[in-house]
Amino acid sequence: MVSMILWSCFHFGQQIDSAQIKQIYNFSLTRSSCYENLRSLCKDVGHRLSGSPSAQKAVEWGYDLMSSMQLDSVYLQPVRVPQWVRGDVEKVHWKDKDGNTKNTNCTALGGSTGTDGIIKGKVVEIKSWKELDSLGEANLKGKIVFFNRPMNPTYISTFMAYGSCVDQRHNGASRAGLYGAKAVIVRSMTLKMDHNPHTGSMSYVDSIPKIPAAAISSKDAHELSKALKNDNVKFLSMELSCQQKPDTISHNVIGEITGYQFPHEVILVGGHLDSWDIGEGAHDDGAGVIQSIQVLESIKKLNIKPKRTIRCVLYINEENGNRGGKTYAEIVRKKGEKHLFALESDRGGFSPRGFSIDGTPLQLQFIQGFQPLFEPYQLHLFNKGYGGVDIGPLRNGTTCLVGLVPDSQRYFDYHHAPTDVFENVNKRELELGSSAITSMIYLIDKYGFPDRNDYKQ
Amino acid sequence: MVSMILWSCFHFGQQIDSAQIKQIYNFSLTRSSCYENLRSLCKDVGHRLSGSPSAQKAVEWGYDLMSSMQLDSVYLQPVRVPQWVRGDVEKVHWKDKDGNTKNTNCTALGGSTGTDGIIKGKVVEIKSWKELDSLGEANLKGKIVFFNRPMNPTYISTFMAYGSCVDQRHNGASRAGLYGAKAVIVRSMTLKMDHNPHTGSMSYVDSIPKIPAAAISSKDAHELSKALKNDNVKFLSMELSCQQKPDTISHNVIGEITGYQFPHEVILVGGHLDSWDIGEGAHDDGAGVIQSIQVLESIKKLNIKPKRTIRCVLYINEENGNRGGKTYAEIVRKKGEKHLFALESDRGGFSPRGFSIDGTPLQLQFIQGFQPLFEPYQLHLFNKGYGGVDIGPLRNGTTCLVGLVPDSQRYFDYHHAPTDVFENVNKRELELGSSAITSMIYLIDKYGFPDRNDYKQ
Repeated sequence: MVSMILWSCFHFGQQIDSAQIKQIYNFSLTRSSCYENLRSLCKDVGHRLSGSPSAQKAVEWGYDLMSSMQLDSVYLQPVRVPQWVRGDVEKVHWKDKDGNTKNTNCTALGGSTGTDGIIKGKVVEIKSWKELDSLGEANLKGKIVFFNRPMNPTYISTFMAYGSCVDQRHNGASRAGLYGAKAVIVRSMTLKMDHNPHTGSMSYVDSIPKIPAAAISSKDAHELSKALKNDNVKFLSMELSCQQKPDTISHNVIGEITGYQFPHEVILVGGHLDSWDIGEGAHDDGAGVIQSIQVLESIKKLNIKPKRTIRCVLYINEENGNRGGKTYAEIVRKKGEKHLFALESDRGGFSPRGFSIDGTPLQLQFIQGFQPLFEPYQLHLFNKGYGGVDIGPLRNGTTCLVGLVPDSQRYFDYHHAPTDVFENVNKRELELGSSAITSMIYLIDKYGFPDRNDYKQ
Repeated sequence: MVSMILWSCFHFGQQIDSAQIKQIYNFSLTRSSCYENLRSLCKDVGHRLSGSPSAQKAVEWGYDLMSSMQLDSVYLQPVRVPQWVRGDVEKVHWKDKDGNTKNTNCTALGGSTGTDGIIKGKVVEIKSWKELDSLGEANLKGKIVFFNRPMNPTYISTFMAYGSCVDQRHNGASRAGLYGAKAVIVRSMTLKMDHNPHTGSMSYVDSIPKIPAAAISSKDAHELSKALKNDNVKFLSMELSCQQKPDTISHNVIGEITGYQFPHEVILVGGHLDSWDIGEGAHDDGAGVIQSIQVLESIKKLNIKPKRTIRCVLYINEENGNRGGKTYAEIVRKKGEKHLFALESDRGGFSPRGFSIDGTPLQLQFIQGFQPLFEPYQLHLFNKGYGGVDIGPLRNGTTCLVGLVPDSQRYFDYHHAPTDVFENVNKRELELGSSAITSMIYLIDKYGFPDRNDYKQ
């Protein structure tokens, strides 16, 4: 059944589809405003942590941009977001036995409490949870715990390496707080050995004392570890002025082109508008935001008439709460909106390699059938996998969730770091990503899925 | 027959091969000296144009490095190389109608004659050979011809875009000289719009007057073209102090591990040691040099015992003459050496995507049979294609020539430009390339090719 449908799709449609996809790529690589839009988001708005004035500016930026595109509808969706503020003071340094002060490049983790003055303490380096638990309160009380398990470079996908390490950043403060530690520092989540600190979210468990948490650069982590091995660290001191403020209201920004045949069937494409408050959120996730907007631009400029409603969602608050994604999905459920397909771009603006597909076996097989159309563009990964954080809450067993998979090698060089800036995004790589997702959305719009009654070519 | 052999290879060998390839990748990503070697080549030696003192330094650097690796043999192969010298003066500027001077970022093309003082002239912009020929001597005599056909961004492989454009750089001076032009300037061969001039080789036809040639940055080309359209260019002036000096002697640097079973059967891996004399030749072709050396390092450190002789060749003079490649192949022919396979890395140190294979249909099919072993490392391109400039002269219908194919999107951002420096090579991408070629060489050494009598598993 599926193979017959696939056969008929490709038999009748492949030449037309090839030509349309070529047009999509050509447009993106020569005439799109994708790169200029990213420049504007990074330079005119800058970084944009949920609840900050610049996040508000980003919401207005997205609304204004999509409003200028002659879409059928552009609107804001209110979202209650947390408001964590970094403050001016961020210092982590340690003293060696000769009394020399060693400064580090550090950054408070998002969500951390401040230190309320300076915290000083002996440092205990930890590589595993097992080690932490076996040291326990007897050895950790009043100490500063230093989580220093590096990302494993032998994973080919750097996301695998990140996934197996980020638990230290996320849970370190609570796990160490349980044993009476004063504070934690974490080695930055990166495979690169350099001086850039990488921030990111952490969370507390209500029943455990909330202790401050900061990341230090991989080079500083290396130096501190070496000094600890040589018993040459007298104490470490830490000062953070960050604080959690009351929740505030921000917005998802939504723009759409109404489908002419199945207007109530939504195909979603999105990325997240918020970013961490260091760098410019260029790869994370300026690239995804811009690529999602460009899907609409390409459709309009190439005069493609979608059967289904193509909706671009710029989510707020992916970084520290995912409230944008959750709120969006709640409203979808309340309204009973039908979402056929949702595609997220949130893995950086690098050369696209394919898609990871979180759908039914039939959906997976159907999308894999499109692979020959993407061969000329060097997209080869069409595997079952994760869609993305923002579209995750739409998961209901029928909506197909898909993530764009770019080359991952450089992503964690920039991720949540001061170097995640416009200059580190390559124009062509960004444009090729836009082209890939626009092409996929064109195909899904055209063919729907064969397991739906309303499937029509 | 082939399918049976393939089947048996994979049936018996696949698990062992998978494990060995995993070891090769792990070594490269954690313990290889690849990145440090590239730093040393770029920073301790620097750029290294054939015939220059720094090229001599590079030869010594390569010889010393391989001599420290406990190989079975390390030696130099003399090569007569051209000696083109840039000199201190490189100026291209133009005057607008109001008398304002507009400076450009320029670079003499390699092989160009100097200007012998300042050349001044009216500028004629040319986009095609047809246009040039139709203007002819009547319109070009005494003028400066400006070749401004940009690389086509719609090619997905940037090498295609380069290949369809580089004729301007290579032949422009002769084609324009034929019509009595005074000099030529060429838009830099890049897809990026920036201020970096890109040099590269050009050649003269003996029967045509030799006129000087320089490249200007893409932004300067854009500005000049705009001014020409507005009839706002009074004249352009150009001064180059470059010159061709007599040929000199340099060397290919060769290191090898002797095969224990078929010592007279050579498997070659190589890149070119020379580079252009701006930047540091980091991607072009420091990366290929370092990756080739790392094949030997990996074999030694992982205690792999090759059946065949694995030879690493650091070629001299790829950039402006290919004398290293030609000399090497001549000596192979004179000695009657048997080369089973030659692999070149000379497309930058970017994320590897696969291999292009210039071999018999059987060789092609056999190598494609290895593809499943490379799937976990995200290599998907196993197509018939070009091997490389240096190994090209080995082409004889039996030696299989293969090129490593990395992601090409950023290559021409750096190619022959001042930005081709160590800092623009990503450590992991470089290491993944080394791993890919080491794995391929391990497989070819183990299995040979099935169309040879000495094929044994």
